[in-house]
Amino acid sequence: MIRILLVEPMNLLRGALTATLSLEEDFEVVADLGTLDQALDMARAVPPDVAVVNVALLAGDGLTTIARLGAEQPDCATLVLAGPDESGLLNRALDLRIDGVVGTQAAPCELVRGIRRLVRGERVIDASLAVAMVTAPRSPLSPRELNVLSVAASGVPSTEVAAELHLSTGTVRNYMSAILRKTGARNRLEAVRLAEGAGWFQ
Amino acid sequence: MIRILLVEPMNLLRGALTATLSLEEDFEVVADLGTLDQALDMARAVPPDVAVVNVALLAGDGLTTIARLGAEQPDCATLVLAGPDESGLLNRALDLRIDGVVGTQAAPCELVRGIRRLVRGERVIDASLAVAMVTAPRSPLSPRELNVLSVAASGVPSTEVAAELHLSTGTVRNYMSAILRKTGARNRLEAVRLAEGAGWFQ
Repeated sequence: MIRILLVEPMNLLRGALTATLSLEEDFEVVADLGTLDQALDMARAVPPDVAVVNVALLAGDGLTTIARLGAEQPDCATLVLAGPDESGLLNRALDLRIDGVVGTQAAPCELVRGIRRLVRGERVIDASLAVAMVTAPRSPLSPRELNVLSVAASGVPSTEVAAELHLSTGTVRNYMSAILRKTGARNRLEAVRLAEGAGWFQ
Repeated sequence: MIRILLVEPMNLLRGALTATLSLEEDFEVVADLGTLDQALDMARAVPPDVAVVNVALLAGDGLTTIARLGAEQPDCATLVLAGPDESGLLNRALDLRIDGVVGTQAAPCELVRGIRRLVRGERVIDASLAVAMVTAPRSPLSPRELNVLSVAASGVPSTEVAAELHLSTGTVRNYMSAILRKTGARNRLEAVRLAEGAGWFQ
């Protein structure tokens, strides 16, 4: 039996995938979770052969959890599900020990095939997502500039960006000038759109 | 048999739902499509009892297609699948003859139950989505103002917004002033965020 741990936040997709994967005679979904919070505990209780995790959950602490899962469960392969606009997160996920990527535009049979290949020790990378990742423009911004832009992205004025980041308003304005110069954007909104489109905030 | 036409753009979800719904002995997914383009043709070929359609497809021409489906197939109930952030589109969809709404945070068994209720002639509205729709702030903007803001949302300067909408730059600036005044936003980016968050662009 191939034991699968499925972590997907959209209940409808998670439920339908659990039912679909369970149709395979040698597949067993040993746990399905909406967040990574209890993934380590579940994996300790019933060690899975494959963890299937939505890439959206790898923002913030998610990458740490996946790294720990890899360290604790060296026999468990990790497969990430990713949408077409998530190449930023995906690039960061691939720096970790991720064994496979399947796109949400794949058919369920492709996910089934990917899981089987992973269990055989192969690596699985969705071709259309790979193209998107390779062609996505890399960020020219420093981590600090990206941070300033991500706070400004909510639409708050520079004074509030400054307050939130414990900077002076003048410093925030200097960062914004550098951001516009480096990205070639003509205004703050255009810079935000560029960063969102390229996945730099993820 | 309950014949289902499923129209969902995410291949993985569509495939998994088709497999899951087909597990019900009295359900038959007579067609599954990624767009509404061929939905009318498919419905004419094999009249469905229920059309399950992702709300994202109702933007633009989608509402017209659904209205025509309702007119051509009076015995076919329409059920919309919607995510938690799509109350704007959902509000517009409900002005049409939509018989049911199920959220993407529902479990597959809730979708199954919703389809059965629709076939019995009941109306099905996801409670958590209804709350989001009722509490979402209504747009204070005129259609023209909303149009100006939606073009500006890409980050292009007023001169380009003016060129695209065949207006003078001064007129666009006047619209932007009215937009900031009516929404209470402190700048263009904040106005765009407000409109996106409330679903006014959908």
